Amino acid sequence: MDNTYSDIGFAKLDLSREERTGAPETVYCAGKTCEQLLIILKTFYEKGIAVLGTRCSTAQYDYVKDSGLPLHYNETSHIIVLGQHKYVQSAGILAVCAAGTADLPVAEEAAQVAEFFGIKVERYYDVGIAGLHRLLSKIENIRKADVVIAAAGMEGALPSVVAGLIKAPVIAVPTSVGYGASFQGLTALLAMLNSCAEGVSVVNIDNGFGAAMAARKILRLKEQK
Amino acid sequence: MDNTYSDIGFAKLDLSREERTGAPETVYCAGKTCEQLLIILKTFYEKGIAVLGTRCSTAQYDYVKDSGLPLHYNETSHIIVLGQHKYVQSAGILAVCAAGTADLPVAEEAAQVAEFFGIKVERYYDVGIAGLHRLLSKIENIRKADVVIAAAGMEGALPSVVAGLIKAPVIAVPTSVGYGASFQGLTALLAMLNSCAEGVSVVNIDNGFGAAMAARKILRLKEQK
Amino acid sequence: MDNTYSDIGFAKLDLSREERTGAPETVYCAGKTCEQLLIILKTFYEKGIAVLGTRCSTAQYDYVKDSGLPLHYNETSHIIVLGQHKYVQSAGILAVCAAGTADLPVAEEAAQVAEFFGIKVERYYDVGIAGLHRLLSKIENIRKADVVIAAAGMEGALPSVVAGLIKAPVIAVPTSVGYGASFQGLTALLAMLNSCAEGVSVVNIDNGFGAAMAARKILRLKEQK
Amino acid sequence: MDNTYSDIGFAKLDLSREERTGAPETVYCAGKTCEQLLIILKTFYEKGIAVLGTRCSTAQYDYVKDSGLPLHYNETSHIIVLGQHKYVQSAGILAVCAAGTADLPVAEEAAQVAEFFGIKVERYYDVGIAGLHRLLSKIENIRKADVVIAAAGMEGALPSVVAGLIKAPVIAVPTSVGYGASFQGLTALLAMLNSCAEGVSVVNIDNGFGAAMAARKILRLKEQK
Amino acid sequence: MDNTYSDIGFAKLDLSREERTGAPETVYCAGKTCEQLLIILKTFYEKGIAVLGTRCSTAQYDYVKDSGLPLHYNETSHIIVLGQHKYVQSAGILAVCAAGTADLPVAEEAAQVAEFFGIKVERYYDVGIAGLHRLLSKIENIRKADVVIAAAGMEGALPSVVAGLIKAPVIAVPTSVGYGASFQGLTALLAMLNSCAEGVSVVNIDNGFGAAMAARKILRLKEQK
Amino acid sequence: MDNTYSDIGFAKLDLSREERTGAPETVYCAGKTCEQLLIILKTFYEKGIAVLGTRCSTAQYDYVKDSGLPLHYNETSHIIVLGQHKYVQSAGILAVCAAGTADLPVAEEAAQVAEFFGIKVERYYDVGIAGLHRLLSKIENIRKADVVIAAAGMEGALPSVVAGLIKAPVIAVPTSVGYGASFQGLTALLAMLNSCAEGVSVVNIDNGFGAAMAARKILRLKEQK
Amino acid sequence: MDNTYSDIGFAKLDLSREERTGAPETVYCAGKTCEQLLIILKTFYEKGIAVLGTRCSTAQYDYVKDSGLPLHYNETSHIIVLGQHKYVQSAGILAVCAAGTADLPVAEEAAQVAEFFGIKVERYYDVGIAGLHRLLSKIENIRKADVVIAAAGMEGALPSVVAGLIKAPVIAVPTSVGYGASFQGLTALLAMLNSCAEGVSVVNIDNGFGAAMAARKILRLKEQK
Amino acid sequence: MDNTYSDIGFAKLDLSREERTGAPETVYCAGKTCEQLLIILKTFYEKGIAVLGTRCSTAQYDYVKDSGLPLHYNETSHIIVLGQHKYVQSAGILAVCAAGTADLPVAEEAAQVAEFFGIKVERYYDVGIAGLHRLLSKIENIRKADVVIAAAGMEGALPSVVAGLIKAPVIAVPTSVGYGASFQGLTALLAMLNSCAEGVSVVNIDNGFGAAMAARKILRLKEQK
Repeated sequence: MDNTYSDIGFAKLDLSREERTGAPETVYCAGKTCEQLLIILKTFYEKGIAVLGTRCSTAQYDYVKDSGLPLHYNETSHIIVLGQHKYVQSAGILAVCAAGTADLPVAEEAAQVAEFFGIKVERYYDVGIAGLHRLLSKIENIRKADVVIAAAGMEGALPSVVAGLIKAPVIAVPTSVGYGASFQGLTALLAMLNSCAEGVSVVNIDNGFGAAMAARKILRLKEQK
Repeated sequence: MDNTYSDIGFAKLDLSREERTGAPETVYCAGKTCEQLLIILKTFYEKGIAVLGTRCSTAQYDYVKDSGLPLHYNETSHIIVLGQHKYVQSAGILAVCAAGTADLPVAEEAAQVAEFFGIKVERYYDVGIAGLHRLLSKIENIRKADVVIAAAGMEGALPSVVAGLIKAPVIAVPTSVGYGASFQGLTALLAMLNSCAEGVSVVNIDNGFGAAMAARKILRLKEQK
Repeated sequence: MDNTYSDIGFAKLDLSREERTGAPETVYCAGKTCEQLLIILKTFYEKGIAVLGTRCSTAQYDYVKDSGLPLHYNETSHIIVLGQHKYVQSAGILAVCAAGTADLPVAEEAAQVAEFFGIKVERYYDVGIAGLHRLLSKIENIRKADVVIAAAGMEGALPSVVAGLIKAPVIAVPTSVGYGASFQGLTALLAMLNSCAEGVSVVNIDNGFGAAMAARKILRLKEQK
Repeated sequence: MDNTYSDIGFAKLDLSREERTGAPETVYCAGKTCEQLLIILKTFYEKGIAVLGTRCSTAQYDYVKDSGLPLHYNETSHIIVLGQHKYVQSAGILAVCAAGTADLPVAEEAAQVAEFFGIKVERYYDVGIAGLHRLLSKIENIRKADVVIAAAGMEGALPSVVAGLIKAPVIAVPTSVGYGASFQGLTALLAMLNSCAEGVSVVNIDNGFGAAMAARKILRLKEQK
Repeated sequence: MDNTYSDIGFAKLDLSREERTGAPETVYCAGKTCEQLLIILKTFYEKGIAVLGTRCSTAQYDYVKDSGLPLHYNETSHIIVLGQHKYVQSAGILAVCAAGTADLPVAEEAAQVAEFFGIKVERYYDVGIAGLHRLLSKIENIRKADVVIAAAGMEGALPSVVAGLIKAPVIAVPTSVGYGASFQGLTALLAMLNSCAEGVSVVNIDNGFGAAMAARKILRLKEQK
Repeated sequence: MDNTYSDIGFAKLDLSREERTGAPETVYCAGKTCEQLLIILKTFYEKGIAVLGTRCSTAQYDYVKDSGLPLHYNETSHIIVLGQHKYVQSAGILAVCAAGTADLPVAEEAAQVAEFFGIKVERYYDVGIAGLHRLLSKIENIRKADVVIAAAGMEGALPSVVAGLIKAPVIAVPTSVGYGASFQGLTALLAMLNSCAEGVSVVNIDNGFGAAMAARKILRLKEQK
Repeated sequence: MDNTYSDIGFAKLDLSREERTGAPETVYCAGKTCEQLLIILKTFYEKGIAVLGTRCSTAQYDYVKDSGLPLHYNETSHIIVLGQHKYVQSAGILAVCAAGTADLPVAEEAAQVAEFFGIKVERYYDVGIAGLHRLLSKIENIRKADVVIAAAGMEGALPSVVAGLIKAPVIAVPTSVGYGASFQGLTALLAMLNSCAEGVSVVNIDNGFGAAMAARKILRLKEQK
Repeated sequence: MDNTYSDIGFAKLDLSREERTGAPETVYCAGKTCEQLLIILKTFYEKGIAVLGTRCSTAQYDYVKDSGLPLHYNETSHIIVLGQHKYVQSAGILAVCAAGTADLPVAEEAAQVAEFFGIKVERYYDVGIAGLHRLLSKIENIRKADVVIAAAGMEGALPSVVAGLIKAPVIAVPTSVGYGASFQGLTALLAMLNSCAEGVSVVNIDNGFGAAMAARKILRLKEQK
């Protein structure tokens, strides 16, 4: 079981994850010290493995950016990428819908993670239900996607409305957008779990990454044909 | 302050409420013993006052129905009415929308309370957002109402969608319809409070009565013109 | 459906909302970057549309104030206004009541939003129930209002007491004022939802804006006569 | 430490509690089997000690009533009393206020427990804040009490309003009266804890017994003079 | 928009749902009266449409079973089926895993709903993580499935462990199995939403139906190839 | 009703509160701007009324301290006092107990508020139940107090243990001391509400002020004798 | 991996658990149908394995008792035992403490599970902290135990007080005894998790079984010496 | 009772705790002022007692480090140690497992506290269940430990999986690692309390200290043999 992970003391990098689950280990930067993050990135770099990190703060990026490693950072999604991924363009299409402008960081996390893995992404932003015509004017395009990610905060109704109008599976991402009784996304989460429309499944609050990974596993079915 | 209420020991019937607030005292039957309910109804009857009771259980109705009092009872809404109300038909129109069949007891409580007070009610039932075309096919009619009550359980998105499409004020009533993470209507309540559409205000879970009373106070504005 | 919204990439400005719902699109500044806010304001300015923004932080205002746009900012309510609104003075009167001094930011958000739309507002501040005589000394004036907004934190009892004394509809706004078991306004929210007085409906915690928009939709009934 | 309690296997009757705390052991009947309750009552009877039991269900009373023990049972308060208490009439007066008819079981638990200990009780029922004049018409009498217990469900505002009008300490008892977002009394409990009026302290939901015991300890101060 | 739904007063049967979303309307029996359920079933029968109902209580089945309608009922899953479905056997395979025996009603709801729609289902029951070898002995078979539904109560760890070992998307179904701090499935729900394994998305507590419908939408991708 | 309060626009200072409730208006500084606080203090000063303010932040004190007003500030309790109070030393004794060192700010708020009103206070600090002998070594002294305030965070057991050992009423103050599942004092609050010892009543989390005001109202009984 | 479990369709009996974890599979009867329970018991009986079942309802026992299997059932603890266990008397002593009479079902579950596995149990019942002398009079005996289980509902302070007085590890079991803000044991659970005394660890609400199993694993250390 | 504690005004240092409970008083630094902390450390130093402090912030350490006291500080665990402990190496072995890198501060708090008391600690880090092979590759070593502490955030499944594979008691430590519906460790806490594996008991969120102290009390059994 030697070469299935790399033990660097405070972490064991899971090198067999892609073979096991179809998805390689990624780096969840939050909660790691700058020093730990740099060591992890260097370890991947030395093994010649491209890797994606999520929730990388500006402070963390400032610490690692001068390391000489080939890094790209996106300020909206807080995604950091080391090296060049190896994935070929997927056959299927992922539509990423967001209810409002404040949901963009989460939607972009989903979109950019998917793109890292070679998935073709179409973005539909600010299509929240307070102005339903904005969504309806795009629905024919959204219907052509193979999987849909729908991100929304506040009352979190977007995934339900979308799922009631299309055939593709909908992955709902509650966001922490809102105030007061939104309880940092809990209301949107609960609303999405209670969707009266079929085919909706839900990931954690603000978990654009998880939605993209679930979408990727689903899109594999299309490619297996 | 003598004649503003009638003291019958365990209760003080508020006889000046209509003059003060525009709405007469009504009877919340839940939590009262059958004996207490009968005494209250008899007291109103002896004073020649028609009165409406809500949340009257079948057991309570069975107890009081043979009293000789002029009573009407509705099994869906659990409303009991003593005598004949005195209210003239209102000028304004109240639309009562319900997302699903299981929301009918709450929607009917709202509708029948409003009708007791002389309000003209139009019912739009099973117009939940999983099949948006059902709502959209009725929206032109709903737009003509002066006030809209929208009752929904589960993710509670109906009031938001309606309010985004019409000009009238929308009173949202979360219902306890659902299971699991609906938490007996809490999810619908929270979702409605976080509505991204303007002009939505919310009453307690399953509170069709309260929605109707708020609608009545609002419709007064139309009649004052 | 071309001219119903303006697509600026990260946002789709809803230009048909006023026609649809009677209320124009407004800007919820929280969660938007300074850059996004400025682009949105410029877009409205170029279209010649006056617009109101809520929850504009001092930092956001500092960023946009030197843009040459005709802006007004209020530090208590955190409202920013671009241009001069077009609304004529409304017939009805809105009373805005606040329980304590700490509730003023929310009450002022409600009052100033209403005033932007031409509503005549009367303010009744620091009328909380710990000193009931302060409220009772004003109640005859409050009774003359067509709609009442009542903002309170802590135990949130003000709307119930007011609604028990007047005929106008009462829109309750829980505020996050308090500490400990106030849970950032949750207690006031729950208390208001359980009001034993009729005609009370509730908006989200600290949602002065939503209360004003609901009041505006209600006051339309008076103007339709 | 021999004679400070009586060990009967499943229970240790605390015989020194009155000496220690001023209040004798009482029996909380809920959660005890009928057999256990009967053994406990018999043990007290054999020791010649009068004892009060709370939350005695009808089923429990039916089981023990034919035992030949001198028992009294009240169906509203669910209090059972064994024997004749020994307490002389207290100097102070306790006012027990209840917001609505449905709060009576809790209010009566408080009142009857107090009376068992010789306290003079005055009852003010159905004085909830939706009809404030009912409370105000009694307030001069209530002001003469030495301690006030105020029981209310729903939004639980009664103790705050009372405490803002009188000098005596107010013990607030939230009741589980209500539905939906009353959460079986949680809302009333939270509201009472956040009272903006001074001198309010709170006991558990439906804990009329606890309120009476706290009142009794407070009234001791009057008697010590 | 005439023939897109059938209006039977208390309900509007959504006849265009399958065309719109790929899934036909089904009947959620809970919260409907026996009379309503029978009318709905008869309406479908008269239109010649096979239909599936979930959460049909024994009492509801007893009421409708003598109607002469061609009905089948399953006591474990509480599923009622009217008529014979029209769906051909799907290409993909759905694995339904359950942690314990008490999770079977939920797992069977998922499995039987899927089978109604022609999906090939493999069942893996009692593979909870307290005896990991039971799961590991089956994992090679589970890896061959195209989609996996994993149902678990208590700490809800099964979906995480499964998703860490296979490539297929995992739909997690928390069940209300447990006691105390399981809070009727809330703990399992939260645990599944926080899964550290990629590709897990979650449906409502006990929502076997929803999991099956999401699986069906996902399996469509395989059939489109 | 003219001279019962002083209206300064954003606030109405309640000048009749002491006559009504036995306690004068005090100033809750949190949530007030520095400007508002200074105006309020000056208003009281001009009327010749000594006043106590709670939760005065260092920043607020820094703003008002150079105003020339006779102010005293305590950094532990965050209490600010304007002028010299007029109260004579009370007959009764208040014992203030605190479980740990971190509870001192709350305990001192209670103690100093009481002292402002002339109450004789005895402090018993760091007597938490993990080292029961520390409490037991002081219990004879505590028994001599007329009222006891017991402040504790974490599991909040101190008031229960104290109340089981003495005759005086115990006012329990949960503090926000703790971490994790202490939930900022919620656990201590709930524990105190469920006290198995008689005579315990509870105030809001960290509400040393409220505990002192309740104690003051209770001690009045002693002085009335 | 053939003989590590027995697959009976709806369940896989874990036959290697004792070898793996030191504790054999037991049967959690709640949530199982009577038929399932009987099949499981028969399977164990046929394999000659004695087995213990918890949370066996009276209805379940009534169903299985006439099966001819050698069963013993305890009505207080709801434990059912099949056959005769094989365990020799343990060296260590387990003390089971319970705060009140209503905690006995949980305490007995713990005690009888432990006894099934050969552990010597000493019971200390009704030693709650409202009458501390009852606990203190037994503390010297409790100190001699090797492990202590402390069960309590309401404010759940017993484990903290015990752990502050002895050297043995304390396993705290919150019980659902209480009402109102005890929230079915949640308050006791939270209090125990926040214990200020060292060496306390906690199991689920009412989980006497789990406490006994943890105690058994701990007592193994004594036997290994 | 003189020499059982040292009274320094704001604190009473518990000098008899080790004799009573087997564990000496330690210092919980959070919530203490820098001045208080220094006084406490000096008091211990003057008495010649080595002491361990937890949750010592960098700011607190910076304040006390120049005092001349013999102090050691660890930045990961936030533990401060005064002097040299007196404990001899324990016979038993404690295994500390952590699911991910972000759990290290908690795991190290547990490990270093245990080491202070002379316990032999083995660390197994980053063995979370998303890559089960990392745990399984170490499980034979972990099986040799006498007690296991398992720290995990997010879904908190590690303790269940470990406990299902070994014979030693498992102390579960939920950590606040995660986001959204992890609710600062609440989800992990609940999951651990609902563990389907036997022999798991739980301490407060992030309470590495408490886990170590419980482990120490358990390991005493091994040494008593």
